[in-house]
Amino acid sequence: MVDVERNRRATMVAVGVVGTSPEQTLDQRLLVIALAIDEWLDRHKPDVVAVERVFSQMNVSTVMGVAQASGVVIAAAARRGIPVAMHTPSEVKAAVTGSGSANKDAVTKLVTKILRLEAAPRPADAADALALAITHAWRAGSGAAAATTGPGSSALTPAQRAWADAEAKARRGR
Amino acid sequence: MVDVERNRRATMVAVGVVGTSPEQTLDQRLLVIALAIDEWLDRHKPDVVAVERVFSQMNVSTVMGVAQASGVVIAAAARRGIPVAMHTPSEVKAAVTGSGSANKDAVTKLVTKILRLEAAPRPADAADALALAITHAWRAGSGAAAATTGPGSSALTPAQRAWADAEAKARRGR
Repeated sequence: MVDVERNRRATMVAVGVVGTSPEQTLDQRLLVIALAIDEWLDRHKPDVVAVERVFSQMNVSTVMGVAQASGVVIAAAARRGIPVAMHTPSEVKAAVTGSGSANKDAVTKLVTKILRLEAAPRPADAADALALAITHAWRAGSGAAAATTGPGSSALTPAQRAWADAEAKARRGR
Repeated sequence: MVDVERNRRATMVAVGVVGTSPEQTLDQRLLVIALAIDEWLDRHKPDVVAVERVFSQMNVSTVMGVAQASGVVIAAAARRGIPVAMHTPSEVKAAVTGSGSANKDAVTKLVTKILRLEAAPRPADAADALALAITHAWRAGSGAAAATTGPGSSALTPAQRAWADAEAKARRGR
């Protein structure tokens, strides 16, 4: 969870990693994720949720599990009327480090610096999540709630941005 | 939704197909599915939910969408403490028609006969869903709520079946 100001200054609000065990049944694992995302969304009421867009680099069985979990997260946001944005790992790396092929260490280092943290977020998944949130805010326009799940949706028209800003303001006012 | 008696006699309770449009954003499509499954589970309070296990025959982008939707469905069942069972398409075809490589027409025809329906369920997805439900009940033991999402979980030990039967009875008594 990050707050991003209009001048692109980003501040960490909270970070968490939800873990499940391969020994749990699939339904129990998805339940753990469902309950966790509900709690995070209800506690922090974000303007937008960013989810990693998974691509064909992965094999089918890995994609299945990741996609099932992401489906739960996306539906949880949709139930609350919170827009969902998706970005690929290379978009995230490019936004945060300047290179779409940066390694995990570089992402963690830059996330630590951008958020002015005293220590690097651990595990690496936490840094990845923060990088994804920063990426969305920077690509969509600082602090805007603008997002869709359509392809290539990160570039907003001025009208979309104005609408998104108004939406974000209305949300904060509630 | 089917009721299956101990003698394997199966009766259709209800059938439905939830459709979404490719023109809707992903989050809206998953929301439609989430709301529909919530309504079905709350209205019919099934003993068990059977979900098709998707395998690597599909390409990655098709798998993604199917997996995201199945994640939403599985989590909805898990939230309610309803066990989830998964069966592959060939398990379903084999259970209903006797052949793991039967075509859609054969599945529809047999489902219509097994459920003693006056007309074939339409669209084919509806017949597939009914076939999956029948398959689960027949494989798990008639009317049993037994199910897990682990691999190869359809074959129950006698102890598991006894437990499942007791569970199913307790559920009906509520």
